Amino acid sequence: MTYCVGIQVDEGLVLASDTRTSASFDDVRTYAKTHRFVFPGERCLVLMSAGNLGTTQAVLSRLQRDLDEGAAINLRRPGRLFEIAEYIGGLLVAAQAQVNRGGRLPAVNVEATMIMAGQIAGEPPGLLLIYPLGNVIAASPETPYLQIGESKYGKPILDRIIRSSTSLDDAARCALVSLDSTIRSNVSVGLPIDLTLIRRDALELAESCRLEEHSPLYQAIRDSWAEQLNTAMGRLPRWPWEPPSADPIRRRQAAQQQQ
Amino acid sequence: MTYCVGIQVDEGLVLASDTRTSASFDDVRTYAKTHRFVFPGERCLVLMSAGNLGTTQAVLSRLQRDLDEGAAINLRRPGRLFEIAEYIGGLLVAAQAQVNRGGRLPAVNVEATMIMAGQIAGEPPGLLLIYPLGNVIAASPETPYLQIGESKYGKPILDRIIRSSTSLDDAARCALVSLDSTIRSNVSVGLPIDLTLIRRDALELAESCRLEEHSPLYQAIRDSWAEQLNTAMGRLPRWPWEPPSADPIRRRQAAQQQQ
Repeated sequence: MTYCVGIQVDEGLVLASDTRTSASFDDVRTYAKTHRFVFPGERCLVLMSAGNLGTTQAVLSRLQRDLDEGAAINLRRPGRLFEIAEYIGGLLVAAQAQVNRGGRLPAVNVEATMIMAGQIAGEPPGLLLIYPLGNVIAASPETPYLQIGESKYGKPILDRIIRSSTSLDDAARCALVSLDSTIRSNVSVGLPIDLTLIRRDALELAESCRLEEHSPLYQAIRDSWAEQLNTAMGRLPRWPWEPPSADPIRRRQAAQQQQ
Repeated sequence: MTYCVGIQVDEGLVLASDTRTSASFDDVRTYAKTHRFVFPGERCLVLMSAGNLGTTQAVLSRLQRDLDEGAAINLRRPGRLFEIAEYIGGLLVAAQAQVNRGGRLPAVNVEATMIMAGQIAGEPPGLLLIYPLGNVIAASPETPYLQIGESKYGKPILDRIIRSSTSLDDAARCALVSLDSTIRSNVSVGLPIDLTLIRRDALELAESCRLEEHSPLYQAIRDSWAEQLNTAMGRLPRWPWEPPSADPIRRRQAAQQQQ
């Protein structure tokens, strides 16, 4: 499986993806699922993918060929993000049909789902989900994040934290916690994590980095989050049946009085 | 859908379940999924169910009939929890066949899955999962919790917090947060929440309560958790590209120096 999340806040866009692919339990590999297409000052696009790796690579190969050959429609042509997403959706439908050899491999799931994010000069930034049928939906202020793959484990923290007004750096921290929670709870999603930040109107990547298991930055955030969660759990209200001595605040006060 | 979680710690057992059932989007009802069978001083059993409501009710009806009629095997007879779980597993298989009318309703999923927890005098407490095929697995010190239904949203917090050494009251708080996170992120899981605590060797229920949306206790824990999570997120380490002024600790120190 895979887990990718894209977040759109007022300050810009955050994209985070894991890198584990598995054809079966004994065929597990590492592949980047974040693909960046940057034309500084003109447009900045990031594509993340979940699902059949053959389908994804067929789409990426075709995107690059269309760019190289200056096809009538390619990643640099349409002036609107939605049209680029629809163009990719068309390639996705074609790639699935091609990989599936006209339905001759019914047992293999050839579907892929994609998240596209970025900005074109003169347009606001955008975050879009491209379904296997090629149809496209965009994020909105009420729905400021989109997920693909193993999305359930990492959803609660996004629902609680992410608003359009969240800062870009806080959104990136939340994306990392969402990925880390998923990785801890599901072996089909794995390190390293690819993280991309795009600031509104910059028309280039603000940050793009890979966080490995032993990256000091990843370790610091992961360990800090584990500690904070334990602290948070310890600060929840007591049950009515618990003795007052179980109340952590009263217990601390009592300890201080004894000193 | 449904979400139920059972936790086994050294001090005893915690069971928590939601109460939403839905046959379709426009057929949503409230049903208890926690069923308590207490024979004080002798044995104390709790059963939680997910899946087809007809199947579950067929099993419950049969369990009660076997008890009332003093059947050769009933909830008060076998001396081991595992045997009781296997007995319920047998009723579950029979109920599924009965509800399915011998396979004549292939479009309807008649499966149900159950969690059984409790203690019999002279035995240690136990927590067991009963699969639709009737087979049974028990929780263990390495796997101190079991879930049925919509289990993914509420799994990360359990993975981070629950150990065998966790106190019973802390485990109950964690179960409530796990339910609350699921309810916030998935409309098929809904309030009220049924919560049951069993202390080791008490052979009766320590606590059993229903938490409604406006229960002060549920509100207090839910609001406190939302606040704690925001605080926790704000305390995570800064990114290397963030200015020192963005560091909440340095910012606080700077504010104090200005005073």
